[in-house]
Amino acid sequence: MSSSDIFISETIGTAVLLLLGGGVCAAVTFKRSKAFNAGWVAIAFGWGFAVLTGAYIAAKSGAHLNPAVTIGIAIQGGIEWSQVPVYLAGEMLGAMIGAVLVWITYMGQFQAHLSDPEVLADHTGEEGMVDQSAAPKAGPVLGIFSTGPEIRNVAQNLLTEIIATVVLVLSILTLGLSDNGKGVGVIGTLLVALVVTGIGLSLGGPTGYAINPVRDLGPRIVHALLPLRNKGGSDWGYAWIPVVGPLIGGAIAGGIYQVAFA
Amino acid sequence: MSSSDIFISETIGTAVLLLLGGGVCAAVTFKRSKAFNAGWVAIAFGWGFAVLTGAYIAAKSGAHLNPAVTIGIAIQGGIEWSQVPVYLAGEMLGAMIGAVLVWITYMGQFQAHLSDPEVLADHTGEEGMVDQSAAPKAGPVLGIFSTGPEIRNVAQNLLTEIIATVVLVLSILTLGLSDNGKGVGVIGTLLVALVVTGIGLSLGGPTGYAINPVRDLGPRIVHALLPLRNKGGSDWGYAWIPVVGPLIGGAIAGGIYQVAFA
Amino acid sequence: MSSSDIFISETIGTAVLLLLGGGVCAAVTFKRSKAFNAGWVAIAFGWGFAVLTGAYIAAKSGAHLNPAVTIGIAIQGGIEWSQVPVYLAGEMLGAMIGAVLVWITYMGQFQAHLSDPEVLADHTGEEGMVDQSAAPKAGPVLGIFSTGPEIRNVAQNLLTEIIATVVLVLSILTLGLSDNGKGVGVIGTLLVALVVTGIGLSLGGPTGYAINPVRDLGPRIVHALLPLRNKGGSDWGYAWIPVVGPLIGGAIAGGIYQVAFA
Amino acid sequence: MSSSDIFISETIGTAVLLLLGGGVCAAVTFKRSKAFNAGWVAIAFGWGFAVLTGAYIAAKSGAHLNPAVTIGIAIQGGIEWSQVPVYLAGEMLGAMIGAVLVWITYMGQFQAHLSDPEVLADHTGEEGMVDQSAAPKAGPVLGIFSTGPEIRNVAQNLLTEIIATVVLVLSILTLGLSDNGKGVGVIGTLLVALVVTGIGLSLGGPTGYAINPVRDLGPRIVHALLPLRNKGGSDWGYAWIPVVGPLIGGAIAGGIYQVAFA
Repeated sequence: MSSSDIFISETIGTAVLLLLGGGVCAAVTFKRSKAFNAGWVAIAFGWGFAVLTGAYIAAKSGAHLNPAVTIGIAIQGGIEWSQVPVYLAGEMLGAMIGAVLVWITYMGQFQAHLSDPEVLADHTGEEGMVDQSAAPKAGPVLGIFSTGPEIRNVAQNLLTEIIATVVLVLSILTLGLSDNGKGVGVIGTLLVALVVTGIGLSLGGPTGYAINPVRDLGPRIVHALLPLRNKGGSDWGYAWIPVVGPLIGGAIAGGIYQVAFA
Repeated sequence: MSSSDIFISETIGTAVLLLLGGGVCAAVTFKRSKAFNAGWVAIAFGWGFAVLTGAYIAAKSGAHLNPAVTIGIAIQGGIEWSQVPVYLAGEMLGAMIGAVLVWITYMGQFQAHLSDPEVLADHTGEEGMVDQSAAPKAGPVLGIFSTGPEIRNVAQNLLTEIIATVVLVLSILTLGLSDNGKGVGVIGTLLVALVVTGIGLSLGGPTGYAINPVRDLGPRIVHALLPLRNKGGSDWGYAWIPVVGPLIGGAIAGGIYQVAFA
Repeated sequence: MSSSDIFISETIGTAVLLLLGGGVCAAVTFKRSKAFNAGWVAIAFGWGFAVLTGAYIAAKSGAHLNPAVTIGIAIQGGIEWSQVPVYLAGEMLGAMIGAVLVWITYMGQFQAHLSDPEVLADHTGEEGMVDQSAAPKAGPVLGIFSTGPEIRNVAQNLLTEIIATVVLVLSILTLGLSDNGKGVGVIGTLLVALVVTGIGLSLGGPTGYAINPVRDLGPRIVHALLPLRNKGGSDWGYAWIPVVGPLIGGAIAGGIYQVAFA
Repeated sequence: MSSSDIFISETIGTAVLLLLGGGVCAAVTFKRSKAFNAGWVAIAFGWGFAVLTGAYIAAKSGAHLNPAVTIGIAIQGGIEWSQVPVYLAGEMLGAMIGAVLVWITYMGQFQAHLSDPEVLADHTGEEGMVDQSAAPKAGPVLGIFSTGPEIRNVAQNLLTEIIATVVLVLSILTLGLSDNGKGVGVIGTLLVALVVTGIGLSLGGPTGYAINPVRDLGPRIVHALLPLRNKGGSDWGYAWIPVVGPLIGGAIAGGIYQVAFA
C-alpha cells in the first residue's frame, strides 16, 4: 500500500475514533445534552464503539489508530519500520481533526457550559486534595479533550497507563496472531472494541485511560489552540504521562508477546 | 429482485426499526412504563438493536432502511438508480407504520401521560433558553416520534446531523466493501448496529441523532395525524434539518469513500 | 433426533433461560442483592443473555425454548408436527424447573423480602389506577416469576404481546432462512439474544414482554405452588394474555414471513 | 504443547482476568475513581470483558483460567489428566498476580479509601443481620479481592455458587462440542464472555458469583498478605465456599453434559 493511502486511512480512522470518543465525554458532561450524566457505562461503551467505528473505516491500513499499536506491530514485524512515521503522522493529524469535530458537534453546548457561573465556580480544585500547586489547573472542558488523574501521582498514573496499555496491545498481538498477522479482521475488530470497553470499565478509574499517545496529545493541542472563553489551562504538566506510559506499555506488551506467545 | 419484493422488505424492515426505536423512547419517557427513566444507555442500545432487528428482517433487499444509505449505495453503484424510488417509498411507508405501532403498543401510557397535569405544566419551555419564539412549540410526546435539538441553532443542528451521518454511511460503505458490495452480511449488520449505538452515545447529545430522513419525517407526519388530545405541535420549523442534514452527510460520505478508500 | 433427546435438550435449555431470566428479576428486586435497583438496562441484557445461554446449551435440539417459536418453525416446515408436543412438554417442564432454581438461588432474599413490613405495606395497589377490582392482586414477588401489566387493559396488553412476539419470531425465521433452515447457528443465536434485549428495551415497558407462553405460565404455576409466606396472589386473571398473545404473534409472524419473504 | 507453555499462557491469561475483574470492583468502589458508583451493569460487563480479554490472550493453552473449567474439560477428555496440575498452578499464580496489579493500578485510591473515616465507620456490620458472630469480619476493601455473601448462609451460598457454575461450565462444554473440542474458538470466547456477564446480572446477587476457585482464593491470599493499613479481615470463614461450590458445579455440569448431550 502506498504511503499516502496509509496516511489518509489512518487520518480518517483516528479522526472518527476521537470524534466518537471525545463525543461521548461531551455528551455526558454538558447539561444541555440528551446524554447528560449517563455515567461511566456510557463512557466505556462509547469509547469501545469509537474504536469499532474508526477501525472498520480504516481497515485498509490495518487500523492502528494508536502509536503504541503501530510500534508494537513494527516490533512484531507486521509492518516496515519505514512506514512507522507515516502511521504516526496520520494518527496525530486524525486525533486533532477528531477533537475539532467534537467542538463543532457540541458548539452550542461548549458555549453554554463555559458561561454557566455554577460550572465555573464548581471547577476550582476539582482534582482533589493531592493537587500539586505548581501544576497548571485543568480547565472545565479539558476532560472532553484529554485525560487527567483523579489523584495526581506521577508514579501511580504512569503505572496505570502502562498496565492498561499492556493489556490492550497484548490482546491485539494475540488476536493478530490467530488471524495470520494481517490485522485482526472483522471479528477481531469487534473483540478489540470490547477489550477497550473492558479496559475502560476496569482500569479507567484512576486516569481516564489514554492508552494511546495521540488520543491524549492531539486533542490537548486542540484545546490549547481553540479560542474558547473561560476554557482554563491545558494541564501541560500531566501531558507527558499519557504519551510515555502507553509507549512503555506497548513495548512491554511486545516483549511479553515475544517471550510468552511467539 | 422485483420492485415489489424490495418495497415489501424495506417497508417491513423500516417499520420494525421505527417500532423498536420509537418504542425505546416511549419506554423511558412514560412514568407508567417498566423502563421509565432507564436513561441514555438504554436509548442508545435500544436504537442500535432496532437497527439490528430491522436489518436482519429486511436482509433480502439489503436492508437500507434509510434514504441516506440508499443514495450512498446508489452513488457507489451497489443498486440501480431506477430502484431508488422503490427503496425510498418503502422506507417512508415503513417509518410511518412503525410510529403507529409504537402508539398502539403504548396506547394506555400515551393517554395517561397526556392527561397528567404535571407533564403538561412541565412542558412549557422545555427546549431551553435559545427558543425561537416564531417556531411552533414541540409537544410533550413529540420526542417519541421525532428528534429535536437541545439548543436550537440551525447551523449547529445541521452540522451535527451531517457529521453523525458521515460516520454512519462511511462505516457502511467500508463494511460493504469488505463484503464484496453485497450488503454488509450477517456480522456486518451486527457491527452497523453497534456503530449506531456508538453514534447515539457520542453524537446524539445535541439533536437526538436522526441520521436518517424517514426516521424523523415519517413519525412526525404520524404525530401530526394521530388524534391525541394535548399532543401539542409537531415542530415543523425543525423538520427539514433531520431530512437535509442526513442527505448531505450521506453524499459527503460517498465522496470521502471514493477519494480515500475506493 | 430421538424424542427423548429433544425433550431433554429443550428442558435443560428452557430451565437455564428461566433461571437466568427470573434470576435477573430477583437480582434487581431484592434489597439484599448486590444488583438491587440495577434498572431496566440490567433486566433487558439479563434476559437477552439468558436466551443466549439457554440457546447454546440446547443447540442440539435447535433451541426453541418457546412454544411460539416451535409453532412458527413447524408452520415453516422446519420440524415435523409430530415433534411439536415433545418440544412443548420440554419447554414447559424446563420453565418450571428454572423458576424453582431461581427460588433456591435467592432463598434467603425471598425470605427477607417477604418479611419486610415496608415491602408488604408498599405493595398495596402497586398496579396503578386502572386496577380491575375483580382481578386477584399480584403478590410482592410475582414479578420474579411472571409478567404483569403496568396498565391493566386486555386489548392493549394483548396487542403489545402480539406485536413484540411478531418481531421476535420474524427475526428468527429470517435468520433461520439465511442459515439453511437448520436453526440460527452460532452467530444467529447471538443475534437473537440481542434482538430479545432490544425487544425488552423498546417494547417491554407496558407488560414486561413475556413473548413466550411457557416463560410466563410455567413460573406462575411454580409461584402458586411454592410454600412462601405472604407471597400474595398469582394474578390468574392476567395469565391467559402472555400465553395467547405470543401464540397469535408467532402465527402472524409465520404468515408475514410466507407472504413477504418466502 | 509443553508444560511451560501451558503454565505461562494460563498465568498471563488469569492475571489479566483478575486484573480487569478486580479492577472493575475497585473502579466502582472508590470515591476517587471516575467510575465510582457505576453500578452492577458495569460490574457484570466488566467481568465479562475481563474473561474475554484474558481468554484471547491465553488462547494458546485453551484459556481455561478456572480450575472448574480445567477439571470439566479433563473429565470430557479434552486434555490429559497429567496436564491438570500445570493448568491449576498457572491459574492460581495468575490470579494472585492479577490481584497485585489491581492494587498497583489503584494504589492511591486504596490509601485514600482506607484513611477515610466515613468508610471505616460505615463498614461495621456491612454484611447484614444474619452475621455469624464467630466469623471474622470482612474488611472494607475485601470486596475488591474476593466475593462475599449478602446473606450469610452456608447452604444457600454453596447452592448459589454450584448453580451458577453449572451454567458456566455447561455452556463451555456445549460450545466446545460445536467447535470440535478444541476450545471454544474466536466466536465462542465472545459468547462465553457474554454468558459470564449474564450469570453476573442474574445469579450474582446473593454471593457475587465466584464461579471459579482461583478467582476468589488467589486474591484473598493477596489481601491477607498486602501491607494495607485498616484493611480488616480476609473473611477466611467464608473462603471455602467459592472454592468448593464451583468445583462441585463443574463436576455436575460434566455429568449433565455426559448424560444429556454427549
